[in-house]
Amino acid sequence: MILAGGSGTRLWPASRRARAKQLLPLAKGGETLLGATVRRARTAVEDVVIVTARDQADATAAALPGVEILAEPAPRNTALAIGLAAVHLAHRDPGAVLGVLPADHHIADEPGLTSTISRAFAVAESDPVICTIGIRPTRPETGFGYLEIDVAIKDAGVAPVKAFVEKPDVATASTFIAGGKHLWNAGMFFARADKILADIKRLLPDTAAVLDDIAAALRDRGAVAAAEVAAKRYPAAPSISFDHGVMEHTTGVVVIPADLGWNDVGSWAALRDVLGTDAEGNTVIGDAIVLDAGNNVIATDPGTVVAVIGVNDLVVVRSGDAVVVLPRSRAQEVRRVVDELTRRGWDRYS
Amino acid sequence: MILAGGSGTRLWPASRRARAKQLLPLAKGGETLLGATVRRARTAVEDVVIVTARDQADATAAALPGVEILAEPAPRNTALAIGLAAVHLAHRDPGAVLGVLPADHHIADEPGLTSTISRAFAVAESDPVICTIGIRPTRPETGFGYLEIDVAIKDAGVAPVKAFVEKPDVATASTFIAGGKHLWNAGMFFARADKILADIKRLLPDTAAVLDDIAAALRDRGAVAAAEVAAKRYPAAPSISFDHGVMEHTTGVVVIPADLGWNDVGSWAALRDVLGTDAEGNTVIGDAIVLDAGNNVIATDPGTVVAVIGVNDLVVVRSGDAVVVLPRSRAQEVRRVVDELTRRGWDRYS
Repeated sequence: MILAGGSGTRLWPASRRARAKQLLPLAKGGETLLGATVRRARTAVEDVVIVTARDQADATAAALPGVEILAEPAPRNTALAIGLAAVHLAHRDPGAVLGVLPADHHIADEPGLTSTISRAFAVAESDPVICTIGIRPTRPETGFGYLEIDVAIKDAGVAPVKAFVEKPDVATASTFIAGGKHLWNAGMFFARADKILADIKRLLPDTAAVLDDIAAALRDRGAVAAAEVAAKRYPAAPSISFDHGVMEHTTGVVVIPADLGWNDVGSWAALRDVLGTDAEGNTVIGDAIVLDAGNNVIATDPGTVVAVIGVNDLVVVRSGDAVVVLPRSRAQEVRRVVDELTRRGWDRYS
Repeated sequence: MILAGGSGTRLWPASRRARAKQLLPLAKGGETLLGATVRRARTAVEDVVIVTARDQADATAAALPGVEILAEPAPRNTALAIGLAAVHLAHRDPGAVLGVLPADHHIADEPGLTSTISRAFAVAESDPVICTIGIRPTRPETGFGYLEIDVAIKDAGVAPVKAFVEKPDVATASTFIAGGKHLWNAGMFFARADKILADIKRLLPDTAAVLDDIAAALRDRGAVAAAEVAAKRYPAAPSISFDHGVMEHTTGVVVIPADLGWNDVGSWAALRDVLGTDAEGNTVIGDAIVLDAGNNVIATDPGTVVAVIGVNDLVVVRSGDAVVVLPRSRAQEVRRVVDELTRRGWDRYS
């Protein structure tokens, strides 16, 4: 199951309310992040389903013809989205294992991912656990959650998760790096569908009630009826993440530590690591004229051009009706622009 | 006569081969530079004609309905353009004085210009001279030509021009400022139409031959026939500027020194002086979000937005399919982009 929900502000103006990050051609060779995720998932499993918002279903289907899509009637965060996928999978095969992958991340080590996913499926198949993949941190990142384990693991073993740690401050994050007992929570996890549904029933009864109605409709009257029930029940359903609602409270969460060259493509600056740089340190998507300029991240739409002269360490992005220019080191602050657009009532640009 | 020829590279990407600088809404309040020039000219004279290239005639007429336009079949520099206007004016009134104004400059002191123009018309009417307006230089500018006079003039008197000086180096330009005997050549001048045509006949006989044919057609068969002759003769006509071909060699050139808040809008950086700045030193045309950023020149098309965070002293311009970003101090180098577009065969952007 590929989780392709949400709309991003961190890659504005390429990502908009109506155009999610995973459908942007930001992977190597102009592949979309979602397309790359589907391709990687298929190296480990046969059945891949994309769960996405109804208003992005058409664009998603157009970008990935032939891939099964489960459209949610309204965005209600990941507990309900994952529960919905679990309901459908359990209906087909009650003993099946569900693997959850975010749609908008980059992974450089694809063979490593394939073997790690295969191992995680095997763990979740044999034990009543939720098996996560934890990325060994390479810097004291304050933008991610961490998975705490009891002992530093050197090989590709499986360790119990002792705690979920919210985004830390930089001092705390630095102690995590030094200690070797914390891993980045990359949002990838694996569990039997019936284990997921049982955990939701125990920990999120209101969410479970919605899912039970959908499951009953699916069982008794089929997929169309299930979609109709979902459309009716989603608007009033609780909005809570699977991490907060289930993972942090359930028992039997384990983790496989891994490297993998993982990158959440969380800002324009991250594209440097995903796409690499030219001899002057520039990362370029689209037509660009770059004179006396280095270490910039430049992106523009097909059929348009960006020219830069004598500037360094900037992000310069043009997408649709908008342009953004800011230092690479402040790339996260793009969201301030989106906030400001809303404040001014310029939502046409957000 | 307003000289609205040529296509600029210095304000790329707003100015393009097919969209000249004078039609851009760069004056205060979104007025075009050409519109402002016409409005100013009319404060001093009744009859205003715009001489422009045939392929810009429609856009010019649309921008300035009701203004007479004389369209040139091909660009052949200013000697022929001014000669053509002189032919048409002399046909209507053999003793009339022609005033030539560039279409794409900014002038802050409009009452001062009106009185200076009126004075220049009076000088050219009473004496067989070419009367220019010389701008008192405010900095050692190396991008302009200078008019040298014999004595520093303090009031609004008229002085003979001793020499035309080509664009000087910065050391020479500094001595000009110190000496007080050099004025910027702003391309504005006034002379009887028959004096202009006589000078062209004496100094540029090939150009005069073309003009004689057009004049004969105009006299004998009317304006349509004159346009047909022009269309036939222009392609093979010599291309030379009025400054080089006539002004530098003729006798009786005089100058009225003036201030006027003149600006040739020769780069994006110049817009700072034309439009002023906000409290943070930014000059903005169009919708912009500016956060922690100062002393930038930002321009974007209507219905589009530019967002900048944490950058200073930059030019950021989006126009049509192109964006340019460079330091304000290097704004002149925009032409390097245009050269590079040509070198790459990306003429669609130039």
